[in-house]
Amino acid sequence: MKLQKITSMLNFEFKNPTKIIFGKGEIQRLSKEIPANAKILMLYGGGSIKNNGIYQQVTQALAEFDVTEFGGIPANPEYSVLMEALKIIKSENITYLLAVGGGSVIDGTKFLATAAHYKGNEPWDILTHRIRAMEGETLPFATVLTLPATGSEMNSGYVISRKETQEKLSCGGPGLFPQFSIMDPEVIKSIPKRQIANGIADAYSHVLEQYMTYKTSASLQERWMESILISLQELAPKMMESEFDYDAAANFMWCCTMALNGLISKGVPTDWAVHSMGHELTALYGIDHARTLAIIAPSHYRFNLDNKIDKLCQYAERVWNISEEEAHKKAELGIQKMETFFQSIGIPTRLSNYTENYEGCAEKIQHTFEERNWILGERKNIDSNAVLQIVKMSY
Amino acid sequence: MKLQKITSMLNFEFKNPTKIIFGKGEIQRLSKEIPANAKILMLYGGGSIKNNGIYQQVTQALAEFDVTEFGGIPANPEYSVLMEALKIIKSENITYLLAVGGGSVIDGTKFLATAAHYKGNEPWDILTHRIRAMEGETLPFATVLTLPATGSEMNSGYVISRKETQEKLSCGGPGLFPQFSIMDPEVIKSIPKRQIANGIADAYSHVLEQYMTYKTSASLQERWMESILISLQELAPKMMESEFDYDAAANFMWCCTMALNGLISKGVPTDWAVHSMGHELTALYGIDHARTLAIIAPSHYRFNLDNKIDKLCQYAERVWNISEEEAHKKAELGIQKMETFFQSIGIPTRLSNYTENYEGCAEKIQHTFEERNWILGERKNIDSNAVLQIVKMSY
Repeated sequence: MKLQKITSMLNFEFKNPTKIIFGKGEIQRLSKEIPANAKILMLYGGGSIKNNGIYQQVTQALAEFDVTEFGGIPANPEYSVLMEALKIIKSENITYLLAVGGGSVIDGTKFLATAAHYKGNEPWDILTHRIRAMEGETLPFATVLTLPATGSEMNSGYVISRKETQEKLSCGGPGLFPQFSIMDPEVIKSIPKRQIANGIADAYSHVLEQYMTYKTSASLQERWMESILISLQELAPKMMESEFDYDAAANFMWCCTMALNGLISKGVPTDWAVHSMGHELTALYGIDHARTLAIIAPSHYRFNLDNKIDKLCQYAERVWNISEEEAHKKAELGIQKMETFFQSIGIPTRLSNYTENYEGCAEKIQHTFEERNWILGERKNIDSNAVLQIVKMSY
Repeated sequence: MKLQKITSMLNFEFKNPTKIIFGKGEIQRLSKEIPANAKILMLYGGGSIKNNGIYQQVTQALAEFDVTEFGGIPANPEYSVLMEALKIIKSENITYLLAVGGGSVIDGTKFLATAAHYKGNEPWDILTHRIRAMEGETLPFATVLTLPATGSEMNSGYVISRKETQEKLSCGGPGLFPQFSIMDPEVIKSIPKRQIANGIADAYSHVLEQYMTYKTSASLQERWMESILISLQELAPKMMESEFDYDAAANFMWCCTMALNGLISKGVPTDWAVHSMGHELTALYGIDHARTLAIIAPSHYRFNLDNKIDKLCQYAERVWNISEEEAHKKAELGIQKMETFFQSIGIPTRLSNYTENYEGCAEKIQHTFEERNWILGERKNIDSNAVLQIVKMSY
């Protein structure tokens, strides 16, 4: 085993103007944060907020405002549903969007904040042409986070799905930071354990995508990423217990935000190949986003064991206290710990655990990647042939 | 020894809109970041930027702009000097301030950004009355950081000294985040080792003030603080060597910023008593700010050993790998490691190492604190009698 050359910290730019209002009882602050004359469209998902008290807290805080509602944004926010919301934004002259939900509702809201000011005929082009939303070019929006996972409450990216074409595409831009996000860990009380597990796996995978690359000298960023992984591992068992634990919930919520608000990746290379492959599993089988990451990640790291050997060993050592001497063995032991961790929160790590129709899946995804001319990974070495093998290894 | 009750993560608000432009060669970006029609006052310190090439890089980048210069801002930025700059701001109708320097120049610039719009007769009142500068109430300003230490390039606080009255007071407000800060680690090449050591000690102490309190459940924040401490310990020997090490310099620069940009203290109690006492040593003896912190900190932690026992033990264990079982012994071993660390970068940790006239110092500081009715510490238990003892323990 040859140790890789260590790359210097990369030049970077960082700006994240989102205001975070964090803690128990803070949803009532809404009324002070939104401009008094705003014409608000309040967006939410399947309606669970009506059963857990969050809807009541939000509408009470907004009693003095002009509010229109749009519910029913599904997980993996669907383009055709969002187009209905866009009609309302235009017909009602909406001036402010308020997302009350998790990553799907917030991502959908970001797309709408962009689409509201888009001049073209077909808003889907924003995604296919990856048109970045600049400051001042979007409808202002804010969020009340109800499901920690994606970090969307404090970043400027979003992912939208389109059933019609089986596509799932991402976009973003500096105009898409929420003006503010209210994060009350109490909202976690009513989240089903399956979604909590997904949130943990999602945040954990976000860190892995930014961490498991080639080694750089950015030692603070690496330690911060390891800190999030360790914190998630520590809080996960408490989050899976039936009794609500505010301390664990608060840590969970803040870890999810910090995992993907742009900070930890500054100065380091990032991968994101696991997400690209994972998105295809969601598009093909409807598997929860977070679970697709847990399916793909272990195979991706095994396939790239040599390319990622330094960081895989560092992960094994610092995150799991594995003292094994031989590098390949150590890296493999770390990957096994990763699998065990996902499984410990009820997330199986093989495609065949989710569907019987996995044969041919790898070829389909390979074909999609070929069509899009996608070459992935921090070394730009994951071509469609590599994708074929990685997905096959995940069966 | 009784373990302390663990407090839940505190509610918090976080917003930090400063744009960071980080890396080799980025000073030239200045011209794209400042509005074209700005009337700029460029502020700097004793003129070292003219010998190390930074002055040339900045003026070259600003060749197309209307720039007035104001040099000579001293370490511990002096009120009377800043009042001269204020006259120029008013007489020249300056619209944009550019601080090219370290914490002193940037802090002085923040005061000026506030004072420029202050309506009262005596700008010193801003500090004595702690008048917070709100968004939109200040002159816009940016920084080119030449000396990492204080984090002032990405926070909204400042400290100003006034020789006339031997005062050193702090203030701030949400209107005082730099619009952008350019951080090129190459600038560190020409910094004297004494100032590098001060920067390391300053950033280290900033973390300690936010970390060494009572224990909370905010585990991510605690791990992030420990990460900065460990990173500073790792890079310190490389920074003290004669050969310039870009990787160590970049880590050092980023650690200093992250130590005091507001993020790591969110959700946790903070102390800052060491700074309050340290400021008095600077006012009385002119000892470098960072060195006053290294003098006071060990005594402060010994005096508060019981109150801070959980965190002192956690520090000893996670930051220094001390495995001692007995808590008081473990805490003391951690404090000794802290002293040794400061000493290893050439910073003595006793007042008597700096002055022969230390007798009566504790009484003077006690008297000052009495006059100001200051009660310090995260438990609000450090009164003027405690200060007397802590300073005496630091002789």
